[in-house]
Amino acid sequence: MPIGQAPFGFPVVRPSGLAKKHDRSYRIIMNPAASTRERILDQGLDLLSVGGLSGVTLGVLAEQVGMSKSGLFAHFRSKEAVQLALLEHMGALAQAWVVAPALRADEGLPRLRATVERWLGWSTGAGLSGGCPIAAALFELDDAEGAVRARVAAMEAYWRGLLAELTRQAVGLGHLRADLDVDQFVWEVCGVYLSHHASRRFLKDPRADERAAIAISALIERARPEAAP
Amino acid sequence: MPIGQAPFGFPVVRPSGLAKKHDRSYRIIMNPAASTRERILDQGLDLLSVGGLSGVTLGVLAEQVGMSKSGLFAHFRSKEAVQLALLEHMGALAQAWVVAPALRADEGLPRLRATVERWLGWSTGAGLSGGCPIAAALFELDDAEGAVRARVAAMEAYWRGLLAELTRQAVGLGHLRADLDVDQFVWEVCGVYLSHHASRRFLKDPRADERAAIAISALIERARPEAAP
Repeated sequence: MPIGQAPFGFPVVRPSGLAKKHDRSYRIIMNPAASTRERILDQGLDLLSVGGLSGVTLGVLAEQVGMSKSGLFAHFRSKEAVQLALLEHMGALAQAWVVAPALRADEGLPRLRATVERWLGWSTGAGLSGGCPIAAALFELDDAEGAVRARVAAMEAYWRGLLAELTRQAVGLGHLRADLDVDQFVWEVCGVYLSHHASRRFLKDPRADERAAIAISALIERARPEAAP
Repeated sequence: MPIGQAPFGFPVVRPSGLAKKHDRSYRIIMNPAASTRERILDQGLDLLSVGGLSGVTLGVLAEQVGMSKSGLFAHFRSKEAVQLALLEHMGALAQAWVVAPALRADEGLPRLRATVERWLGWSTGAGLSGGCPIAAALFELDDAEGAVRARVAAMEAYWRGLLAELTRQAVGLGHLRADLDVDQFVWEVCGVYLSHHASRRFLKDPRADERAAIAISALIERARPEAAP
């Protein structure tokens, strides 16, 4: 599939209000009278980033948004419908915050590096109060079943597919070695992401960013054409 | 601190009933008439491994154990007290399942390798239905505060300290290089653990074990005395 277009939850759409606490340009272009649905999604996504999927119930969300449960019910008919909409909303935000800027880097290793750099700690950069909802869901829903888990799995598959595609482009351009096990490389990059998330957000290690940068550089060194397989 | 003795939740104690679905020797030594408290802890820990800390409420646990909420209340006065007791129970199980057998391996790199091998996927091996409660809590509680988060943080610090100590022993014996950044090494090993957890449990990747083994071997190769720093 072409990079930048995704079937699951990462459509290239106008980012809504939430993202842009830290980016003045968005304040100008965004609709100042955000629709009620968008306001629910923005505040719900923030809630999701802090408390995980189990933290987003219709009751808590209604209170957060300052409306009645029945008012919220007019927009979303169930907790599951809210969660699915929030995941889609998150996908749009991640697309705007992580992917779109990274795609402006030169093809190959620079674009792969830019994507990973934008990805690490992206939720904070994009204005969310908490961590990455997908990372949390990988641990929260591992023993669950149903549509929400399936959506998370599809989004994670899309994301790993994107990283693999960028890695293959770097291989194709000779930036990484021809016999690289691309899926293994992506698997290990995902490990650095998760370790960074745990270390920065939970352990509050001030060296988390530095440690992630060292780990990513080491993975890339191992994948260089001159490295032994 | 000496390896095998821990201040937080990893005391070396007799493992209670839960662990030993897969290990006949435990069936012989364990007390066949487990106390009510132990039965609550065993079933609560299983619940915790499946549903995370937010999944363990007094109501759900009482139903799981088949007793009244007020009956459960006689053993634990609050949800927080249950969660803290379950974390301690988990620590004892991890000590028995992961640490104690690994400490029988030769000192240095063999012992470090054995510890990481026992750790990967340990919850299933130890008989729990779900994943590692600490890994899940690192994402579930990253934006929380309070005694439960503090206990998880202390247990994670103990665990990383143990891995660091084993790594330093391997350095001291010349199995790993003298200028190794031990904390960075442990940080990256933790990333492999988290990636393996997500890939085996959530993504259900049949190659998760193999990918983790490759990643750990590569980390060790990079840390060998003959490797370039």
